[in-house]
Amino acid sequence: MKLIIAVVQDQDSNRLSAALVEHNFRATKLASTGGFLKSGNTTFLIGTDDIRVDKALQIIKDNCQARDQLVTPVSPMGGNADSFVPYPVEVEVGGATVFVLPIEQFHNF
Amino acid sequence: MKLIIAVVQDQDSNRLSAALVEHNFRATKLASTGGFLKSGNTTFLIGTDDIRVDKALQIIKDNCQARDQLVTPVSPMGGNADSFVPYPVEVEVGGATVFVLPIEQFHNF
Amino acid sequence: MKLIIAVVQDQDSNRLSAALVEHNFRATKLASTGGFLKSGNTTFLIGTDDIRVDKALQIIKDNCQARDQLVTPVSPMGGNADSFVPYPVEVEVGGATVFVLPIEQFHNF
Ligand code: NI
Ligand code: NI
Ligand code: NI
Repeated sequence: MKLIIAVVQDQDSNRLSAALVEHNFRATKLASTGGFLKSGNTTFLIGTDDIRVDKALQIIKDNCQARDQLVTPVSPMGGNADSFVPYPVEVEVGGATVFVLPIEQFHNF
Repeated sequence: MKLIIAVVQDQDSNRLSAALVEHNFRATKLASTGGFLKSGNTTFLIGTDDIRVDKALQIIKDNCQARDQLVTPVSPMGGNADSFVPYPVEVEVGGATVFVLPIEQFHNF
Repeated sequence: MKLIIAVVQDQDSNRLSAALVEHNFRATKLASTGGFLKSGNTTFLIGTDDIRVDKALQIIKDNCQARDQLVTPVSPMGGNADSFVPYPVEVEVGGATVFVLPIEQFHNF
């Protein structure tokens, strides 16, 4: 068996949870402060058979990979709204750091 | 040596801490948001000699195992208190997800 | 490759982050509640080649080791400020719990 530790951005966390459940992976999600204070990260602990490690990694990659996103800023508060021309700005979102570890025992009590 | 990673419900966290200390296990407890926002989980990192792994697992099981609990709801606010007959509802509480990992070094600085 | 899990006090967290970056270690820092509620801990996940494990441990020790600190209390509120003679009190701060684990795969998506 293996333990996969995956640290992902909060915004991808729910989607990753759903995809793991859909593919019958058991994941434990560690709470973090990110949820309400600022954008943070969530840590997934996934215990899996050796043969399904690649599938789990693919699911993490599919749902969390770093990508550029176009964000159109809203009109600036207090600025001259008439002359403000909003244009989209590219920001990088997502990304995951993933460790695969050997495991000797796994229990659900 | 082994590292035991145990994710337990917040409500069992203090009791587990006390039991581990009582049996001379060194545990590091990771903070989580669960404490004041909503019921969450706490992650224990326990470094231990191979020979004491079974004992640690037994302590975790004894203190955190999932169990049914009878909860009697209070009279509903704004409802007709005269006709409200409270009866106990069974909810599952507790539970632990536990990983045992090989470890190459353990340090306290 | 190895995974180093280091749990350190919040007050040492930023200094350790900077030192790890300076020496080209990739670290993932797990959020914790400690930051604004009370003094807590931060967990670092550091993936590194075997050959650099000792260097990483040295950096953690240098920046986080438990040490005594002299704290001079301020005049007590509501007390008799005239007769209050502040003297420094020694408190232990810092400290780190560190695990080094074998690792089979490491990915950044
Ligand atoms: Ni699929
Ligand atoms: Ni006992
Ligand atoms: Ni240096």
